[in-house]
Amino acid sequence: MPHFSVTRRVEFSETDMAGIVHFANYYRWMEEAEHDFFRSIGLTIMRRLPDGSYLGWPRVSAQCSFERPLFYADTIELRVTVERIGFKSLTFAIEMYKGEHRVAHGRMKTACCLCKAEGALESVEIPADYLAVIPVPETK
Amino acid sequence: MPHFSVTRRVEFSETDMAGIVHFANYYRWMEEAEHDFFRSIGLTIMRRLPDGSYLGWPRVSAQCSFERPLFYADTIELRVTVERIGFKSLTFAIEMYKGEHRVAHGRMKTACCLCKAEGALESVEIPADYLAVIPVPETK
Amino acid sequence: MPHFSVTRRVEFSETDMAGIVHFANYYRWMEEAEHDFFRSIGLTIMRRLPDGSYLGWPRVSAQCSFERPLFYADTIELRVTVERIGFKSLTFAIEMYKGEHRVAHGRMKTACCLCKAEGALESVEIPADYLAVIPVPETK
Amino acid sequence: MPHFSVTRRVEFSETDMAGIVHFANYYRWMEEAEHDFFRSIGLTIMRRLPDGSYLGWPRVSAQCSFERPLFYADTIELRVTVERIGFKSLTFAIEMYKGEHRVAHGRMKTACCLCKAEGALESVEIPADYLAVIPVPETK
Repeated sequence: MPHFSVTRRVEFSETDMAGIVHFANYYRWMEEAEHDFFRSIGLTIMRRLPDGSYLGWPRVSAQCSFERPLFYADTIELRVTVERIGFKSLTFAIEMYKGEHRVAHGRMKTACCLCKAEGALESVEIPADYLAVIPVPETK
Repeated sequence: MPHFSVTRRVEFSETDMAGIVHFANYYRWMEEAEHDFFRSIGLTIMRRLPDGSYLGWPRVSAQCSFERPLFYADTIELRVTVERIGFKSLTFAIEMYKGEHRVAHGRMKTACCLCKAEGALESVEIPADYLAVIPVPETK
Repeated sequence: MPHFSVTRRVEFSETDMAGIVHFANYYRWMEEAEHDFFRSIGLTIMRRLPDGSYLGWPRVSAQCSFERPLFYADTIELRVTVERIGFKSLTFAIEMYKGEHRVAHGRMKTACCLCKAEGALESVEIPADYLAVIPVPETK
Repeated sequence: MPHFSVTRRVEFSETDMAGIVHFANYYRWMEEAEHDFFRSIGLTIMRRLPDGSYLGWPRVSAQCSFERPLFYADTIELRVTVERIGFKSLTFAIEMYKGEHRVAHGRMKTACCLCKAEGALESVEIPADYLAVIPVPETK
């Protein structure tokens, strides 16, 4: 069971001359699903701190495997699962479905970071109020 | 030694509110480097066939790990290595450097496909004239 | 009164290092609102014809004026008005609101075209079944 | 005579299922040409100030007219002309050529602004050191 799911429609600008969705869009979609998930549990991925910096979640790595092509106006469901909670990072697994068929699956690892002026990043431990609401991954 | 390298500059539209390059852009860059590599050996990634279909190279999977942030106007070098030549697929490793520092590294697997009307894809063996010019990966 | 309206949320990837939405995204949004409008009246902007070509609506021109900046997670409403129906083209006015405040307004002119193989375009008269459902602009 | 020109190649990810370049990309290209122009006269479009804010150039408006379609791997030339220098704004005309043929032309008006924390913008007069190097528009 995924911890969260969201549906979206494929936009015209997301297709390429091969007539299918260009692969770079899947990474934006995975991120948007992750942000919707954060929103669903009352969090934001860019928390403004009193000193003007942000608590953010830049990517450590992201991967996606493409199983079936997607087309303009397709409706897809993105299923988000929290796969691992580290001290300073989260790993999400995302599966994408078009009806009954899985069309792609990916994984993103993000680091909890202070985002300071001029793009300086410092990794920090995940705050307690985040840990209190992020669902605990199933043990396998 | 990479088989090919190309440099590019980070554009303003590729940054996000954290002040750094948004991660989805790295996948476009890896693809553009791959296409430049094809061009450098006299190939194209979309070969028009007599029946109106294309010989193309859709993605099977793509991943990237982000080691250091990138900023507006940074110059980056993308180093492309052919890592594996399969019967119907190619695997590329791409390393990105800003000066002496590696900032990211990724991998893309692409399938040689007939791209027919309405986005139908059929994987096929890599044609001989492609194999004749694609550099052979080093054995490790 | 606009003929159609749709709301959307600003995504993180749509921001830039100035902390606001990058202007190129507004053109995608205007297009997506136009496509949603077509869908709302039972039309599609890419109609597949029996000979394999498409009846599509490429842009003739598009403009946008930016009145107030937009930020990550803002909710915006796009109000679409059919401003002019020509023999072979449509002109849409689009206003964008954040709450009570208009944040941008634009205009797009699109041509009704046969989209043939290899990107060949031929402008044609708007078909009767489209004209039957596209709302008539108010006279001013 | 334009004040600046730059060439670029159409990338695969910039095409759409109609087989031609998606119109939203032209706005990014116009911006990139503007930024290259700034760079060519020793300026940057994001000047970091001692207090941590930026002197930047957000858009007031941007328009583009599309005269001929563009295709994957086309080489295009963007010709940038400073059309008007206001107290607090610049207007650029940009023409795009594919070989001898003009394929598109647009115009962008940008405001000289202090970009402060959290995306706050304040329009300011164009600094003297910018005015000293920006070419004066021809009188017509």
